[in-house]
Amino acid sequence: MAETSASPALLLKDELDIVIPTIRNLDFLEKWRPFFQPYHLIIVQDGDPSKIIKVPEGFDYELYNRNDINRILGPKASCISFKDSACRCFGYLVSKKKYIFTIDDDCFVAKDPSGKEINALQQHIKNLLAPSTPFFFNTLYDPYREGTDFVRGYPFSLREGVPTAVSHGLWLNIPDYDAPTQLVKPLEKNTRFVDAVMTIPKGTLYPMCGMNLAFNRELIGPAMYFGLMGDGQPIGRYDDMWAGWCTKVICDHMGWGVKTGLPYIWHSKASNPFVNLKKEYKGIYWQEELIPFFQSAILPKDCTSVQKCYIELSKQVRAKLGRVDEYFIKLADAMVTWVEAWDELNQTGKSSEVPNGAAK
Amino acid sequence: MAETSASPALLLKDELDIVIPTIRNLDFLEKWRPFFQPYHLIIVQDGDPSKIIKVPEGFDYELYNRNDINRILGPKASCISFKDSACRCFGYLVSKKKYIFTIDDDCFVAKDPSGKEINALQQHIKNLLAPSTPFFFNTLYDPYREGTDFVRGYPFSLREGVPTAVSHGLWLNIPDYDAPTQLVKPLEKNTRFVDAVMTIPKGTLYPMCGMNLAFNRELIGPAMYFGLMGDGQPIGRYDDMWAGWCTKVICDHMGWGVKTGLPYIWHSKASNPFVNLKKEYKGIYWQEELIPFFQSAILPKDCTSVQKCYIELSKQVRAKLGRVDEYFIKLADAMVTWVEAWDELNQTGKSSEVPNGAAK
Repeated sequence: MAETSASPALLLKDELDIVIPTIRNLDFLEKWRPFFQPYHLIIVQDGDPSKIIKVPEGFDYELYNRNDINRILGPKASCISFKDSACRCFGYLVSKKKYIFTIDDDCFVAKDPSGKEINALQQHIKNLLAPSTPFFFNTLYDPYREGTDFVRGYPFSLREGVPTAVSHGLWLNIPDYDAPTQLVKPLEKNTRFVDAVMTIPKGTLYPMCGMNLAFNRELIGPAMYFGLMGDGQPIGRYDDMWAGWCTKVICDHMGWGVKTGLPYIWHSKASNPFVNLKKEYKGIYWQEELIPFFQSAILPKDCTSVQKCYIELSKQVRAKLGRVDEYFIKLADAMVTWVEAWDELNQTGKSSEVPNGAAK
Repeated sequence: MAETSASPALLLKDELDIVIPTIRNLDFLEKWRPFFQPYHLIIVQDGDPSKIIKVPEGFDYELYNRNDINRILGPKASCISFKDSACRCFGYLVSKKKYIFTIDDDCFVAKDPSGKEINALQQHIKNLLAPSTPFFFNTLYDPYREGTDFVRGYPFSLREGVPTAVSHGLWLNIPDYDAPTQLVKPLEKNTRFVDAVMTIPKGTLYPMCGMNLAFNRELIGPAMYFGLMGDGQPIGRYDDMWAGWCTKVICDHMGWGVKTGLPYIWHSKASNPFVNLKKEYKGIYWQEELIPFFQSAILPKDCTSVQKCYIELSKQVRAKLGRVDEYFIKLADAMVTWVEAWDELNQTGKSSEVPNGAAK
């Protein structure tokens, strides 16, 4: 019954920022020019702030390096990771737009089976603008897609769906494997194009990858914190996972949807599995306790805003995961700092304030 | 890491029955000959038992009509629907095999995007023989499929998976829509081939369609009851839905998996939407109460067998859905009768007994 017939090409041009964390020149943007150029970019420069990052001509962007982050956030800058792509969440913080699309700089334009270049951003926008269906599984996948609908036996009361908070895209070529799987299957490539978008059901966790991700910042932004990773931290490569688990629990509580599937990007190169193993190994055993923690996390009814949910979650992290490792106490503190920073830069009721960044 | 590399072509030849409910000559089997001929068929003839159903030469089958059902089950035959394809579950009852594949006689061989004919049975067998992953969502879908694996962030403790109880296949051409959707979209065809199999997460319900379905009879058979539909009943076209909701709740309780996705069959013709509306209309509003009922159904720990689960579920149906309509009291009784009939024909400890059907 329901259909999203409006073409979202160039939709949201003034309502969406593209956030890119990087340590190098952004030549990869050349490939994305036809799709990204109309949009505003927020580039978060990781590592040495004195390095000059070149951005191809013609893109509209603002760029923040570590000095900018420290200046804008002051002591609260401690919640933003350094030497880790987790720093990207600073871009979510300073954006004033309703939607965010974030992509890694080793991700290129993929082709669909007919050979056509995939406009990943356009598909994310479609996903975010169409409702989600977290309360019952539709066997023909996204019921709002053209040519599809809800199947027999799908309750009519659930067919309006709920707002979509997150759109998680996938990767052709190099799949997003952990270090042990990379080591065991060094040559495995993802060549399967699965032509589907689906809602991840309520109560189900998933591994959210930050490589090709879009979300409704107005809905879920304050929980899209990528944690403490990289420099000075005992762990890496769990930034997006952490954000994925926190946001999923909160979306489930708030009644919002999380989608996964299309669009694909072309992931060009695998990161070094030995380096990854070093970053991941604590996460690999910690996650065995994190998953049951998030699976059983319950947010009280008076958590009526994402901020309240996130502060409550930080308390549960401190109380329950603090016993796993003292790192989680530090992380719980950082979660609170993040929400404080969010509220400082995104004051409700006030008109949009552009922080004093290196806007170009 | 995990892979199912063995080709299941002709696997399970002596361990799987194909169950077909029908009211007409089974010419459709000609199209399936290369794939089905090595297997044993159980044909459940619906309607007038004096009608002769022609089965193409060369198929190994047994056929049961209403007289056979009455003779074999005696008074318990009341639990088997008449003039409704729900009668197919009689085939599950009399089978002595470990696995069942059931298909409607208006379903033909579909082609994959490369034009190759899809061996639906072989894909169901692959699905049933590979584990399921109901406790956490893998964003690259079935992690046991060749060329795929568990992605970063998937807990290692969950990578062994659990036994698969049900494999739910899909339909190209005519989608499985309810009467209102058929009426609103009379021309809609499903042309999208989604190249994926996935586990439906624990705690999530789905609309199970009986058109193209396989299951592990040894695991979940006693709960695969298609209810009271058709002749003398106030409802039709909810037989497979009912079985799907009951089996999903029980699989979740027992720790078994339910998969959906591949294989596709070609569904040739839409049933009459006006006739369907008449059959469905009570179900359309009843299901608004059925879904919350099944979503909140909890089976106690001492339900350690499917039979115990099913009897417990029948009690909850009687107590809670009996208030919705007296039909559910009758259905709860029939659920008990079904399990009694199952146990009578499938006595544990005894060697397989072939009931006195019209085996050819």
